[in-house]
Amino acid sequence: MTAKMSPLDIQNRLDMLEARAQTHIDVPQIRAMLYGGQDKWDTQRKIVEILSKDSVFDKSRRSFMTRKERYKRGLAMTHRVFELQEVHKWSDADAAWVIRNMDEDVAMVLDVGVFEPVVKNQGSQKLLETYGELIANKGIIGCYLQTELGHGTNVAGLETTATYLPETQEFDIHSPTLTSSKWWIGGLGKTATHGVVQAKLILPGGKDMGPHLFFIQLRSLKDHSVLPGIMLGDIGPKAMGGYVANDNGYARFNHVRIPRENMLSAFAQVMEDGRYVRPPHAKLSYGSMLYVRAHMISTMGWAIAKAATVSIRYATVRRQGTKGPDGLEKQVITYSSLYYRLLPLLSRAYVFLFLGQNLVEMLAAMQSQLTTGDTSLLAEMHATSSGLKILASATAIQDIETARRSMGGHGYSDFAGLGRLYADHLPGATYEGDNFVLDQQIVRAAVKSCKTLLGLKSTSALTPSTAYLRLLLPEFYDTQHATEFPEWDDPNTVIALLEKRAARIVEARTLVVDCDASMDQRVSRAATEAFVAVQVGKMIQSLRSHLAESEAAVLAKLFNLYLLTTVESGLVDLLSFGIFPQNAERGRDLTGGLRTAIKQLCLELLPEAIGLTDAFGFTDWQLDSVLGVYDGRVYEALWARAQTEPLNASEVPDGYEVSDQPLCRCSMSD
Amino acid sequence: MTAKMSPLDIQNRLDMLEARAQTHIDVPQIRAMLYGGQDKWDTQRKIVEILSKDSVFDKSRRSFMTRKERYKRGLAMTHRVFELQEVHKWSDADAAWVIRNMDEDVAMVLDVGVFEPVVKNQGSQKLLETYGELIANKGIIGCYLQTELGHGTNVAGLETTATYLPETQEFDIHSPTLTSSKWWIGGLGKTATHGVVQAKLILPGGKDMGPHLFFIQLRSLKDHSVLPGIMLGDIGPKAMGGYVANDNGYARFNHVRIPRENMLSAFAQVMEDGRYVRPPHAKLSYGSMLYVRAHMISTMGWAIAKAATVSIRYATVRRQGTKGPDGLEKQVITYSSLYYRLLPLLSRAYVFLFLGQNLVEMLAAMQSQLTTGDTSLLAEMHATSSGLKILASATAIQDIETARRSMGGHGYSDFAGLGRLYADHLPGATYEGDNFVLDQQIVRAAVKSCKTLLGLKSTSALTPSTAYLRLLLPEFYDTQHATEFPEWDDPNTVIALLEKRAARIVEARTLVVDCDASMDQRVSRAATEAFVAVQVGKMIQSLRSHLAESEAAVLAKLFNLYLLTTVESGLVDLLSFGIFPQNAERGRDLTGGLRTAIKQLCLELLPEAIGLTDAFGFTDWQLDSVLGVYDGRVYEALWARAQTEPLNASEVPDGYEVSDQPLCRCSMSD
Ligand SMILES: Cc1cc2nc3c(=O)[nH]c(=O)nc-3n(C[C@H](O)[C@H](O)[C@H](O)COP(=O)(O)OP(=O)(O)OC[C@H]3O[C@@H](n4cnc5c(N)ncnc54)[C@H](O)[C@@H]3O)c2cc1C
Ligand SMILES: Cc1cc2nc3c(=O)[nH]c(=O)nc-3n(C[C@H](O)[C@H](O)[C@H](O)COP(=O)(O)OP(=O)(O)OC[C@H]3O[C@@H](n4cnc5c(N)ncnc54)[C@H](O)[C@@H]3O)c2cc1C
Repeated sequence: MTAKMSPLDIQNRLDMLEARAQTHIDVPQIRAMLYGGQDKWDTQRKIVEILSKDSVFDKSRRSFMTRKERYKRGLAMTHRVFELQEVHKWSDADAAWVIRNMDEDVAMVLDVGVFEPVVKNQGSQKLLETYGELIANKGIIGCYLQTELGHGTNVAGLETTATYLPETQEFDIHSPTLTSSKWWIGGLGKTATHGVVQAKLILPGGKDMGPHLFFIQLRSLKDHSVLPGIMLGDIGPKAMGGYVANDNGYARFNHVRIPRENMLSAFAQVMEDGRYVRPPHAKLSYGSMLYVRAHMISTMGWAIAKAATVSIRYATVRRQGTKGPDGLEKQVITYSSLYYRLLPLLSRAYVFLFLGQNLVEMLAAMQSQLTTGDTSLLAEMHATSSGLKILASATAIQDIETARRSMGGHGYSDFAGLGRLYADHLPGATYEGDNFVLDQQIVRAAVKSCKTLLGLKSTSALTPSTAYLRLLLPEFYDTQHATEFPEWDDPNTVIALLEKRAARIVEARTLVVDCDASMDQRVSRAATEAFVAVQVGKMIQSLRSHLAESEAAVLAKLFNLYLLTTVESGLVDLLSFGIFPQNAERGRDLTGGLRTAIKQLCLELLPEAIGLTDAFGFTDWQLDSVLGVYDGRVYEALWARAQTEPLNASEVPDGYEVSDQPLCRCSMSD
Repeated sequence: MTAKMSPLDIQNRLDMLEARAQTHIDVPQIRAMLYGGQDKWDTQRKIVEILSKDSVFDKSRRSFMTRKERYKRGLAMTHRVFELQEVHKWSDADAAWVIRNMDEDVAMVLDVGVFEPVVKNQGSQKLLETYGELIANKGIIGCYLQTELGHGTNVAGLETTATYLPETQEFDIHSPTLTSSKWWIGGLGKTATHGVVQAKLILPGGKDMGPHLFFIQLRSLKDHSVLPGIMLGDIGPKAMGGYVANDNGYARFNHVRIPRENMLSAFAQVMEDGRYVRPPHAKLSYGSMLYVRAHMISTMGWAIAKAATVSIRYATVRRQGTKGPDGLEKQVITYSSLYYRLLPLLSRAYVFLFLGQNLVEMLAAMQSQLTTGDTSLLAEMHATSSGLKILASATAIQDIETARRSMGGHGYSDFAGLGRLYADHLPGATYEGDNFVLDQQIVRAAVKSCKTLLGLKSTSALTPSTAYLRLLLPEFYDTQHATEFPEWDDPNTVIALLEKRAARIVEARTLVVDCDASMDQRVSRAATEAFVAVQVGKMIQSLRSHLAESEAAVLAKLFNLYLLTTVESGLVDLLSFGIFPQNAERGRDLTGGLRTAIKQLCLELLPEAIGLTDAFGFTDWQLDSVLGVYDGRVYEALWARAQTEPLNASEVPDGYEVSDQPLCRCSMSD
């Protein structure tokens, strides 16, 4: 039976062509802005083209591979990146970008993302002399061993010991218990040759100085065998097939000796005789930790962008239900319940991508201040990056699933690609600080600022991340309850509302005696959203300096959609603190005006949706989704992909006859 | 290195023992109630014991299997169930229970769950004479072919045709296009021998009568080969490794002939000469469709119960952070952010399990009414089961992930078991009616009832699922806004609040001119939650007839926690319709009282949490979770399981040396 071209297949393409024709924006202009410049886009596009043509990076069989095969494929990819780097003269930064963007969480991600910056920033001069070059050239591969079987969040509770032995000027690294086994360590299971171990420093005499970092070799560079006294292994598969190619591993140390200079000495040092000394500029080294988190914001932004691209493309060509005047069923994206789910998600992709760019810039500014010994920006950067980390990871996880679910049954196919994206981004809520634990830090900082403000009765101590607290001062505080609704199309009034909400809830948290069980989550969310809202306001203002008028106008609407849906998700706070007018008439939904404004914005943005997702610049190879194909031919893609399923290789499946008996109990002639 | 017993390992067991000792409830009493009687529990427990000792049902290697191997394992399990049924003289109902509860979504689930009831209820006398026995004895295996590549929700849009040929008294089944390929059909890809196909009936002369059901043989019963004119295959892997053992498949028909009596004739029949006739009691057959949905409520309830058991057990033995007076870090379940996430989830498991029981009873009542031609309960059952299907599936998905995430990094291990549970329950939001599409049906029914009520000014037309609308009548309607908070410990006032919310929002939806994009979701949710709240009220009242006083008291608290957290999740509606008092003082959170009551209830329930999860009666084999082990020895279980990872079989991984070059670029002596 040959597959005749269905009317629906032809319609798929027409719908996509039509949607592209409808878009009013100049896609390349917005794309350049998203990539931080046309030249960056050009470079990355060239790289992606090279990768997508190289069979090592082929994705067509990965759905059918075992973990062992995926791990092996990951190694081959990693290896190939460095070969290609030489051939194409990519910079180290470009190669690192490839490692992070080749759509596979390989061990090397941890090397370039964590191990390398930590050693570079915190290693002693002597250590860097020995290993600096090797690390830079990938002569060794590193991992970061902090978490243990028994301890993650509570770093102070780590059980691994590093005992200083003045006689030999060595540290003795030891895992005293089962629960002190290092666990979850990316790249450790089978790949890494070296690592940085977090262990309790024990001074001669037995004094426990708490956790410090130590550089340690794990495997031989001759034959990759595990070094004596060390026990290493892979911790097994991850939930939902996530991180499949990464060998997150465990390690146990049986009195392993390392030289004194292997202690990373940026924070502290042990002298030959065992004296403990702190260096003057310890905080200098904090930068490398913030760097990891700052990167997460963009990573999450790109993940939402992928989910938005796939789901909006599919919803544009999928037709289902009511027939229109043209005799065709409606494109599902035209149903309000659908665009209401997908367009806000698109706005969040844009916001997080720009926030990520800003954060990296702020970080660079802080880094250069730090070199002059000025640590004033540190606390602020810490607060900002923690808040954004929580918001971006929690949002991305939810948005990817919203996008997947919006695609009905086909969204549940592995070939749709969003299940994989979800599984790989899910642990972002847990690593780099569990979100629920980080909430508490945000709250603590906000409450502290609030107390200072209420004490001083001045805004002098406020930073950008707590600027909203100014609204608690008498000159800003509305004693009356709100009686008028904000102008929903004026970002400034909307931002003010979100700042007011943060101010009121932080105030309540500061004054409360017996705090309820969900308040910290609410406070943390409100504080971060107020900060982000102000940033979004600045983004709106600066649009015209990057874009022509019509493009700027569309993005301004998209950003306003972000603001309005943020208000919508915070309505309970707004209503319960009296920031919303409260004289409802019978049958009147107080929140109706806001919601109608959201619907209106969505309708205005609908014709731009395909253009706005095209601007992310993903190729079909990058998305690897049969439902997100650029040309819209989703049915043909689904069909073709299903034919590659190994179960389809034989007509009667292996195992159908179990111990000579067919599954059916009796037989009957056909 | 041998694993010395860690202090933390010992503490694990002590903590679990202590938690069990603390529980005030008599676990077996509550367990019997959950299982619908002690005898049912006894039967099912015996069955589970047999399965868990049988190597065919062993789960220890499944994390490492390919889909092909998992499919094969599923076949072997299915086969074994029927062998065991003979050995142990299980009833057919017991065997069907095993198929649904053996923790693998095999093809046979669709046979016993959909195919068999549909054929039984809707097949002609003649069809049942030929196939009835065979189906009951699993002599043939069936599937249900409705969805197509191009159509799911919109059944009217299906393209497959069944053209009646009076000359031969046959139907010609045909797939005219690529998009008319049947798709997603459970058990079709490799297993099923027969199926029920949904196709457009075309009468002689060409009249299209819309979708009807046809019984069709797909594969030979001699050698399982695909019959001529039919093209079958597996559609490929599912997202996140879900439904891995099920061969959801596709089918295309090239003018396949089937005899006239193969049309399922409960709704309609085609006579020999091609005349179309409807039978008198068509609606009789609706029961079988409702049955599938009613079952989903319990299934979702058991899934939440598993997630609650695993996460609460782990949170009981996991210690992290602040040290208490005993020198030990706190059990994480004692952190408010943790118990606030887990205990409401536990309450939902209980509520859905009891709702599922009720629904099955209501269904039986309706079925016996139907046999007398009384269809009065049908519309009500349809509304109720749709609303509960949306609520249960959406809630279960969210709760499983909340539980998984609460376990920090270890929750992301495949061995923790909740990732698998999530992936397998995820499509519940999509099949049996996409939740967002079903929302519209709920809204339509509610608005219709509301119009009738406002027109008649009487409650005469209200059914249990719309009883809340009575609150719109003048005698119940509070013209004043609420000025006092409800008594949070009095379920009746809380239920009244949820009913009021439903009434007000349905009224607003009925009166609204331009509906916003999220209102239908809100209306649907509010209506269903009001119905459930009333049911929960009844459950509370009937507790004492099943349980002793102390057990009844604990469950009453648990149910009240359900009610309060439902109110919490509906706060926006309550506040925006003025059902909550609204005169906030400065810095006062209007919702604080409710939230404090929730915290208080959680604290009271905390000592009972382990007992309440034990009452679900899961064995370690059923849960298959290293973090949910009965004895609390989570670290030992995690360690032991990691050792089984295939990557750990060799010290240097396969593929480490790529094309004779190690991954490390240069080598250096160790
Ligand atoms: C995919 C992945 C990769 C990883 N890679 C690495 C790596 O390369 N190197 C490395 O060292 N680690 C790594 N980790 C480990 C990660 O850093 C930890 O999982 C993380 O720090 C959380 O700690 P935990 O898992 O011990 O959670 P826990 O601290 O045990 O948290 C369990 C629960 O308790 C709650 N909780 C804990 N403490 C408190 C408190 N004080 N107050 C209130 N609630 C609390 C949490 O919110 C959570 O719900 C990785 C983890 C994952 C999932
Ligand atoms: C695991 C699994 C097993 C299955 N097993 C079977 C089986 O055994 N037999 C079988 O026949 N089928 C089966 N199905 C198919 C299932 O019944 C369909 O996926 C389901 O009916 C949804 O239809 P759809 O996938 O076409 O989604 P669509 O209808 O294409 O929905 C796509 C999106 O459009 C929206 N939408 C669609 N119509 C409307 C509308 N009118 N108004 C507003 N929004 C709308 C939806 O909300 C959704 O967001 C299975 C599916 C899965 C995932």
